[in-house]
Amino acid sequence: MSEAAQTLEGWYVLHDLRSIDWQAWNAASRAEKDTAISEVTALISEWEAVEERKEGSLALYSVVGQKADFMFMHLRETLEELNAIENAFNRSSFARYTRKEYSYVSVVELSNYMSPPGVDPMQVPEIVARLKPILPKSNHICFYPMNKKRDLQDNWYMLPMEDRKTLMRSHGMIGRGYAGKVKQIISGSVGFDDWEWGVTLFADDALQFKKLVYEMRFDEVSARYGEFGAFYVGNLLTGESLTKLLN
Amino acid sequence: MSEAAQTLEGWYVLHDLRSIDWQAWNAASRAEKDTAISEVTALISEWEAVEERKEGSLALYSVVGQKADFMFMHLRETLEELNAIENAFNRSSFARYTRKEYSYVSVVELSNYMSPPGVDPMQVPEIVARLKPILPKSNHICFYPMNKKRDLQDNWYMLPMEDRKTLMRSHGMIGRGYAGKVKQIISGSVGFDDWEWGVTLFADDALQFKKLVYEMRFDEVSARYGEFGAFYVGNLLTGESLTKLLN
Amino acid sequence: MSEAAQTLEGWYVLHDLRSIDWQAWNAASRAEKDTAISEVTALISEWEAVEERKEGSLALYSVVGQKADFMFMHLRETLEELNAIENAFNRSSFARYTRKEYSYVSVVELSNYMSPPGVDPMQVPEIVARLKPILPKSNHICFYPMNKKRDLQDNWYMLPMEDRKTLMRSHGMIGRGYAGKVKQIISGSVGFDDWEWGVTLFADDALQFKKLVYEMRFDEVSARYGEFGAFYVGNLLTGESLTKLLN
Amino acid sequence: MSEAAQTLEGWYVLHDLRSIDWQAWNAASRAEKDTAISEVTALISEWEAVEERKEGSLALYSVVGQKADFMFMHLRETLEELNAIENAFNRSSFARYTRKEYSYVSVVELSNYMSPPGVDPMQVPEIVARLKPILPKSNHICFYPMNKKRDLQDNWYMLPMEDRKTLMRSHGMIGRGYAGKVKQIISGSVGFDDWEWGVTLFADDALQFKKLVYEMRFDEVSARYGEFGAFYVGNLLTGESLTKLLN
Amino acid sequence: MSEAAQTLEGWYVLHDLRSIDWQAWNAASRAEKDTAISEVTALISEWEAVEERKEGSLALYSVVGQKADFMFMHLRETLEELNAIENAFNRSSFARYTRKEYSYVSVVELSNYMSPPGVDPMQVPEIVARLKPILPKSNHICFYPMNKKRDLQDNWYMLPMEDRKTLMRSHGMIGRGYAGKVKQIISGSVGFDDWEWGVTLFADDALQFKKLVYEMRFDEVSARYGEFGAFYVGNLLTGESLTKLLN
Repeated sequence: MSEAAQTLEGWYVLHDLRSIDWQAWNAASRAEKDTAISEVTALISEWEAVEERKEGSLALYSVVGQKADFMFMHLRETLEELNAIENAFNRSSFARYTRKEYSYVSVVELSNYMSPPGVDPMQVPEIVARLKPILPKSNHICFYPMNKKRDLQDNWYMLPMEDRKTLMRSHGMIGRGYAGKVKQIISGSVGFDDWEWGVTLFADDALQFKKLVYEMRFDEVSARYGEFGAFYVGNLLTGESLTKLLN
Repeated sequence: MSEAAQTLEGWYVLHDLRSIDWQAWNAASRAEKDTAISEVTALISEWEAVEERKEGSLALYSVVGQKADFMFMHLRETLEELNAIENAFNRSSFARYTRKEYSYVSVVELSNYMSPPGVDPMQVPEIVARLKPILPKSNHICFYPMNKKRDLQDNWYMLPMEDRKTLMRSHGMIGRGYAGKVKQIISGSVGFDDWEWGVTLFADDALQFKKLVYEMRFDEVSARYGEFGAFYVGNLLTGESLTKLLN
Repeated sequence: MSEAAQTLEGWYVLHDLRSIDWQAWNAASRAEKDTAISEVTALISEWEAVEERKEGSLALYSVVGQKADFMFMHLRETLEELNAIENAFNRSSFARYTRKEYSYVSVVELSNYMSPPGVDPMQVPEIVARLKPILPKSNHICFYPMNKKRDLQDNWYMLPMEDRKTLMRSHGMIGRGYAGKVKQIISGSVGFDDWEWGVTLFADDALQFKKLVYEMRFDEVSARYGEFGAFYVGNLLTGESLTKLLN
Repeated sequence: MSEAAQTLEGWYVLHDLRSIDWQAWNAASRAEKDTAISEVTALISEWEAVEERKEGSLALYSVVGQKADFMFMHLRETLEELNAIENAFNRSSFARYTRKEYSYVSVVELSNYMSPPGVDPMQVPEIVARLKPILPKSNHICFYPMNKKRDLQDNWYMLPMEDRKTLMRSHGMIGRGYAGKVKQIISGSVGFDDWEWGVTLFADDALQFKKLVYEMRFDEVSARYGEFGAFYVGNLLTGESLTKLLN
Repeated sequence: MSEAAQTLEGWYVLHDLRSIDWQAWNAASRAEKDTAISEVTALISEWEAVEERKEGSLALYSVVGQKADFMFMHLRETLEELNAIENAFNRSSFARYTRKEYSYVSVVELSNYMSPPGVDPMQVPEIVARLKPILPKSNHICFYPMNKKRDLQDNWYMLPMEDRKTLMRSHGMIGRGYAGKVKQIISGSVGFDDWEWGVTLFADDALQFKKLVYEMRFDEVSARYGEFGAFYVGNLLTGESLTKLLN
């Protein structure tokens, strides 16, 4: 009998971080810029239409600092659709003025560490909604990938499942304290990308990211077993504010 | 008497991951693009003909995310043939529009941890077929390199062979639970590349990669002794869909 | 009851390190250089005006060695303002001659490990001034990011809060020994960037950075629990000396 | 009395790995290519003449995978001669079509862990020949740098010399089992490059690299104390096959 | 009472490693090359004049291998002077043909671990000369940065000062065994750059670097507590031999 917890999966996720090649952009003619802007705006509209049809979702944020200029977070039913999104972007004339910075492939995941015993989670509408979520349009986004440690005596994967459940329950309590302030989407990336999970947080007040992540760091799950990758923080963009950014 | 397990080796393997230089590609003329596409298509046909003659095999997948645009997985009898494949690609006009992203050199390997005692594995037709396999054309591929840890008390190479055999047997049981869903090719790279093994998984449902790798992570072989490199996940490409991707 | 210490946050901080593309700069015409210099000088004046209105602050330093040519340290009320600063810089003609080197996103932070019991820190004017500080114009700057370790038995986040308080108090005593010689600004970056804190030191005598950081390294907080990123050291620049540097 | 083993040193070694800039090469005219090929061929002939005079040696191999296109391994009496080789290559017109990938500086070394007690190793002609070796022209090369670990209780440098001698003797026994199949050159790089040793293996059957390195990995010297860098594997090149590769 | 040893500081140090952009250099016209050479030669003469006035010092070496083509080691009274040197180099036409590779910022340091008790080190002329040294013009240079480890039970900074003194004394004895063969300059970089110290060795026989560093590695200070960065080894250059290298 396997010690791995059962997980539920929903939409596939692509975090796609790009920078503007400002040298090329500043050197482009007005006409070239207009074409590029209209092509990227058309793509965004297309993706928003997919979201309206509830066949996927899009979050579009600028990124603060030099790590990237903007982050697209795409949700789709299949990896093929995510690939098609990349290709459409790359073939647009706007792509000519951008550089790849970082991407992350994962799938929205719910662990039933958190589901009450005796309940089939797929019968809980809130859970279904969380597996195929329409991303919030909060003012700020925070994304980071993470692992559970396997380091000598600090080895999450060698713990009995009962201990892991207890630890995760107390961990979840902290998150619940931020209900209404921070919305959290966990996506699993084992077998898809270099870390085991991606964590995407949404909040209107960016300070809540710091409060939440810092408080959790003292919880044993993070303190002993958490291993964190790079953090990306950003501000909401719309087609309109993207256009403004570029002019 | 050596404590190293005996292994069997088959075809050499080259995982060759490349990106399209979209800026150069988008700037190319129709005629340049046509030449490039016909040259890469001709190479692919040549490699497929080798596979038909059972002198090697080819898997061609797109890669999801920014790590690469496509992955060629080539199998051949010798390292010289793999080198010739690289050179043919590099000299093609299509190469002009691509960038190197990552490669991995290994050789298909079977460990007799898994062979029943008293059986000469080279007499088992299934084993011979696994050493020189024709790669499946599943919808999805997952590739990652890995090591066995040598970290203080978590040192695989200091374990008695009997213990390693027992651990590997239970590890193999998990894999067998995915029979029909995931096909796995293990290639050894000690002495050839930076990690000790390459793992290539094929599946029609990409979610099975996650299920398999996650379940295995709780098994002691992975939990205590596994060390993992980058993960690459992709979608099946054909000469035709590659052409479509480029137009 | 959470074991995380309460912290107070003030202005958001962007450390923005850039290099001059000397090849492009040396190839530029006199007129191009003049335009670029006047645009960057105008931006600096604008940012100084913000500082005069006490709506933010700016430190501008050259960086010694190849890591960067200059470091802007911007303080603002919101992440949106920091993002707008980046975009204004990137759209200037001066940006054409620069390359991104490193950036760091954080928020000025005071930990009440250091506040006497029974005192509301927001009633202490010195604390309020430290949360929204006007950056000193000392001769030298030193910036580095850092973490508290979580490594087996050296795990800061598993210590009881009482122990952490005691350790931080003795740590603070060392800093106090440098009063008048080194001014220190701590900014928290949990949830914002790849390390947990940014430390920015200002001094007229650069040797005091070495004395302070070295003395602290023997203190248990740093010796057992400190994990340090790259160090950047620089010399004060003014609009005038920047112009001189470029001619 | 020092605990460091006495070592004997011979010729200095430069492993010089380069890639072809295929974009530039494919764009070059026939005349440019001919000049470039004739210049690199002339350099190779010059280096072969040095080898004939027994004043140095050269190995020239292609590299399989994307890490590099070819590897020059140069042996010379002095670091100045190695530097002159680099400069001659860099000033050639062929260099214009190549990119630096990796290099390694070391000196051929014999440790007297392996010499029988009471024997002056410089009186053993086989040892002298191994310190200033003419490199074999085997079909394949394998190069990797390595360290002896200094990690808490797995610290090679804290072991008594007697223990290190015993461990190295059993380690050497494995190597001897590959006599006639694999030729091994150990070069020391303490004080010269980033790892402590470079290991260069030559074999007509590349599979022997895997067998040897894998078998050694279970030996305590490697299992507990070995730390390995990148592995480079290649196929023999001659001036002629290099020319063919380029056309 | 602080457990940090008192240190004495002298001149600031900039190790500045650059590569020649051979593609650009080989494409330059004779006149462009002559201008570039005469500008860099003029800078070197200027820096040699500073050394003659005993207001600083210069070492100029080529670097063996691909890490860089040459290393300037500059000593000056202030960080501002080091910055001015960089800027003068970057603005020269020679810089157009070079690329940044690595730099290191530190300050010449003497630790009084090594000074006999009861002696004021500033009264020892040999010590003063070592704080503001005129760099030797030995045939070879070796540079590497290093830390003292803080890894669980191998934590230098948690040792009582008495133990550190004893360990350093025995460490110093090894160095003294190389008197007349290797000249060593230790510079501290805590607060200035990414490692805690820079070690620069000068010798006429490069093999002595290997002998010294290897012998020290068995000493407990290095074996248990030393952590080493990249090693750079080079050959003496003069303005004349630099010119020759470029032609």
